[in-house]
Order: sequence, then structure tokens, then C-alpha cells
Amino acid sequence: MMIDALKNDLLLRALRGETVERPPVWMMRQAGRYLPDYIKLKEKYSFFERCQNPRLATEITIQPVEQVGVDAAIIFSDILVVPQAMGMEVQMIEGKGPLLPEPIQNKNDLQKLYLPDVNEKLGYVFEALTLTKKTLAGRVPLIGFAGAPWTLLCYMVQGKGSKTFDEAKAFCFSQPALAHQLLQMITDTTIAYCKGQARAGADVVQVFDSWGGLLSPKDFEEFSMRYIRQIIDALKGDCLTIIFAKGAWFALESMAGTGANGAGIDWCITPALARKFAGNDITLQGNFDPSRLLSPIPEIKKAVREMIDAFGTHRYIANLGHGILPNVPVENAKAFVEAVKEYSLETA
Amino acid sequence: MMIDALKNDLLLRALRGETVERPPVWMMRQAGRYLPDYIKLKEKYSFFERCQNPRLATEITIQPVEQVGVDAAIIFSDILVVPQAMGMEVQMIEGKGPLLPEPIQNKNDLQKLYLPDVNEKLGYVFEALTLTKKTLAGRVPLIGFAGAPWTLLCYMVQGKGSKTFDEAKAFCFSQPALAHQLLQMITDTTIAYCKGQARAGADVVQVFDSWGGLLSPKDFEEFSMRYIRQIIDALKGDCLTIIFAKGAWFALESMAGTGANGAGIDWCITPALARKFAGNDITLQGNFDPSRLLSPIPEIKKAVREMIDAFGTHRYIANLGHGILPNVPVENAKAFVEAVKEYSLETA
Repeated sequence: MMIDALKNDLLLRALRGETVERPPVWMMRQAGRYLPDYIKLKEKYSFFERCQNPRLATEITIQPVEQVGVDAAIIFSDILVVPQAMGMEVQMIEGKGPLLPEPIQNKNDLQKLYLPDVNEKLGYVFEALTLTKKTLAGRVPLIGFAGAPWTLLCYMVQGKGSKTFDEAKAFCFSQPALAHQLLQMITDTTIAYCKGQARAGADVVQVFDSWGGLLSPKDFEEFSMRYIRQIIDALKGDCLTIIFAKGAWFALESMAGTGANGAGIDWCITPALARKFAGNDITLQGNFDPSRLLSPIPEIKKAVREMIDAFGTHRYIANLGHGILPNVPVENAKAFVEAVKEYSLETA
Repeated sequence: MMIDALKNDLLLRALRGETVERPPVWMMRQAGRYLPDYIKLKEKYSFFERCQNPRLATEITIQPVEQVGVDAAIIFSDILVVPQAMGMEVQMIEGKGPLLPEPIQNKNDLQKLYLPDVNEKLGYVFEALTLTKKTLAGRVPLIGFAGAPWTLLCYMVQGKGSKTFDEAKAFCFSQPALAHQLLQMITDTTIAYCKGQARAGADVVQVFDSWGGLLSPKDFEEFSMRYIRQIIDALKGDCLTIIFAKGAWFALESMAGTGANGAGIDWCITPALARKFAGNDITLQGNFDPSRLLSPIPEIKKAVREMIDAFGTHRYIANLGHGILPNVPVENAKAFVEAVKEYSLETA
């Protein structure tokens, strides 16, 4: 595939630890629900139509690049396309979230799953990436993503969102051998999926472990980190990688130990402590409290400057500490991005 | 009031930093939804009937002492009795949680609230404490509690439970002066309320900041810690105190700085790191993952021994890292308590 040279490669340079004029900025969930143009598409097409139609996915992916001015595009998709590709039914219930009507509870359920041919089952994501890459024409880098195996297990066993995912945890604690079998199947699928994303045009892959912070440090190592480590290992040479395990500040040192290029952090840790835990060989990404985007714009700009002051401009990507909230005015999201762009190295 | 001498004062000695034969053990939310005898009362009486009838509240409070063997009783009540006493309507919707149909949004809403006479509005809690104390007849110490002002503000502004409490946070970020006025009113009420609990028989008061972990370290100091500090200060000489701010591991040092006797921690921090942050002058309480009580009993017992090994037996109270889940079998809760009681200092 012919790839246009990147006009803005700030994200890639920051991830490689190279010098940048200013930190790159993007926002988790930037393609989506707070953007009026997205909401129009949402009214016309179902969630999976939006994911599975490469033209729609590309349009949604590019919206925040054009309308908010972020330094990277992240492909519009969902982490649950992987369980779906492995043979599980996944529904998206408007206003309620995902529903997997036949959750995994025992060995029999597990035997219904399979290791898919990702080109056959997830080819639509690869097509969307290739079309997006082409349409971006080198404006900004393109990020692909996947859910961490632990987070996918949470949904596959619990069957829906949960504050505690206690059924998923009980499954792991009472049937650990089965849990590890499932986690390995998800991991193998995810590796093939992420490699396909890199081939299709993703410059970076981010692994989202949204529920990593529900585990104790010891359980996180056992049920999450060891599978994330396999994924990061397998992707070396294919693309740059970022691990975002929400709430799992305690594992920053082992995340850095995987050799991933970046680690996302939430706002519940100070930049100084995160850097201390993570060491100097990984780029930190974060950690603006998404609720802070509901502040008045001058407050947002001030808080962004303070955030960059605290992180420093080296090995740092400005981002939120979790996904953007649906009720954030577009102007406020723009103010966040602008504040990073206005940050001059002289002020540091 | 004549008070029977305590036959089991392990909890109080652990909180004072005195030597104990073994760590005391109790469980957050131990009086409640996993106990069949509680469920029977729940079928007959509404939530607030159970709280407001001192005879019922006493019966529920004592159930886990007699049936599970914990080393402390914690009064059956709810943190939302304080907003209720300040003039807000609070409903408990079965299976959904609390609903405050007229949440605080502006100055006008705030003016409808008042600083209550706690004896008049919350006298039923004091009566329940006194009756419980009498009925316990010195078997174990009695814990009273209150919500931290930040957590109460969350419900009073958001009007219901939430994963992010983004409306409550937006209120604080966009109208900080009003937020601080509300937090101070809650604090003043809470101090009077906790002093009343101590007078009525509570040996210990625990302040629950269930949503402290949603704030950044800086915002936690501004919107939560400074009010918790006032409460702990005001209670010195009245009773022993424990701060439990779920997820706010980053503030352990400042919690210890308040002079509180204990700090509760959740399972997302190792005992060693918690001790390092908190220093040696405060008793740590926690931090068993509540979902781990869904493991097979031998696994529970093993994990409890490992937990105590990691914390050590000095200045330590065995507890969960959050409330017990409703689907925990009573046998498993008992196994947790027994494992602590079986822990011999020789094994340490």
C-alpha cells in the first residue's frame, strides 16, 4: 500500500521518545457521541452498521481530526467486535450498553467459541483502516485498538456492563484453569487482529483494559498483565503500542517492562508519581479528568497548561484520563486541544 | 449511660496502636443483604422503616455479630440520612439505589437546605445506637458512621447513583463557591451528627468517602479532604475515627496527617505500599477483594492468611476493601471471619 508521508507525526515521535515541538494531543472516544455530525449518523444507522460499513467508520473516524483538530485519528469501532468474531452474540442496547445474551459460564460454553480467521470475520475493520489511512492522506497518524483480554472476559462472562464485574471475577477465582483457557483464546485472536490492523494501516495500536483497575495487583498480573505482555511482544516490529489500563496505576512499572511505547494513565495519579512508577523509557499519555471538560473554557485552558507543566513535554501525549463524556460541548473539546497546541516550550 | 466493660476490645486496641493477640475483623456492609434473616425483615419493612425503627435497626446490627462472629457491630443506617435531615427528599428504589428527585443545581436550591437540629432529625439513629450498645452488653465495640461531605454532595447534586458523577463534578468545577458552601453545610451537620453518635454509644465513627476515588489528587484535597479533616479534628476526644475513601490511595499520607486512628483501603494497593504511603502512626483496615468471597472456601482461607501476612498483625484490622456483595453465601463470609480468628501470631 502506498502511504502518504505524514505531515504531522508528533504522536509517533512522542511514542518513540524523540524530541517534539509540543506534545501531541488526542482524546479517547474522540470519534463519537459528543459530536453533532456523529449523532446524525447514529440516528440513521445502528451501532454495528456504523462499525461494519468502512465508509461510515472512516467518516466518523475523521470527524474529530477535521472538527476538533486532534493530532491522531483512532478508528471508530468497539472492543466487543472480538468476542463477536469468536462466535458470541453481542447486542448494543441504546442507553444501556452492551448485552451478550449467552455469557460464558462453564466448559461447554467455552467450547462454542472458536479462533476466527480475522480476515474473514474482522476484515471490515481492516478495510475501514485502509480507507481511513487513504482519506487522511498523511494529515495525522492512525491508531487502531483492541480490548485487553481481561476486559473482554469481563463482558463475555458477565454478559453486560457492571460496576464490580463480580460474576466475571468469581469465574476466574473459582475456575482459574477455564479462565486462563478463555484468556489465551482471546489473546491469540487479539494478536492476529492487531497484526491485521497494523497491516491495514494502523501506525499505533492501543490496548484498552477498561476494567484492569477492578483487580488487585496480584490478580491483575495473573489475569490481565500476562496476556497484555503477549500482545505487546507479538506486535513489536508491526506497529507502535500503547497500554491503557484504567485504574491500574499499580502496574505502571510492569507495563513499562513490556516494552510498550506508551502507557495511558487516568487522573487519579499525579504525573510525578506516574513517571516515578513507569520510569523514563515509556511515553505517558493522559490524564485530564473528562469531567473537567464541563468546566468554563478559561478553566480548561488553565488546567491543561498545569497538566503539561507537570508531565513535561518529553515522552508525553496529552489526552483525557478516560473517554470523553457525551455531554461535553464541542467548544470545550476544542479548547482542550487548542490549549495543548498553544502550549509553548518557552512556558515550560 | 452505664456501659458494660467490653469483653472483646480488639478493634479499639488495634485502632489505638496497642498490642493485640490477633487482628480484629469486621466487614463493611456486614449488616445486610447477604444475610437470610435480614432479607426476611426487608420483605416486611421499607428501607427507611428499617433505619428509623431503633428496634429493627438494632436487630439488623446485631445479626452479623451473632451469626458471622465479627469483632465489631456497625449500626444499620445509610449515609443519605444526612441529606434527608438537611431537608432533601431521598427515596430508595429497590434494585436501583437512591433517588433524590430534587437535586441541587443552583443557589436557590441550596437555600432550601438547612442545618438541622440533629437530635430532632436524626434522634432515631442515636436511639438505635443506645439500644444496640445495651443489647450488645459489651460483646464487641460499636461503630457509627457518616458519609464524607464529597460523597454526599455527589448524591445531592447528581440526584442518583452514577459511574462518573460528572454532573456533581461539573457543579464543583463551574460553581466552586457554591460547592464549598454546600460542603461546609454538610460538614457542620456531619460533625454534630457524629458527636451525637459518640454520645449515644458509638466507640468508633467511620467516615465513608465512597466516591473520593473519582477525584484527582488535587481535587480530592480541595473538595473532600479538607472537610474530612474538619470532621476528624472535631471528633478528637469523642470517639475513635476511621477514614475510608475508596480508590483514594493517593491521599493515604494526608489521611494519616489528620490524626484519624484508622484508614480503610481497597484491594487495588498492596499492603506494603499502603503502609509506606500512610506511615506507621495509623491503623490500616482492609483490603480483601469482596469478589474473592465468591471463591471456594479453602481459597478464601488461604487468601486471608496471605493478606494478614502482608499487613502484619500490628495496627491492622482485617476487613473487605468495599462492602460485602449481596450474592455471597453466608458460609463464605463466616470462613473469612474464621480465617482471621484462626490466624495465629506464631504463623507470622
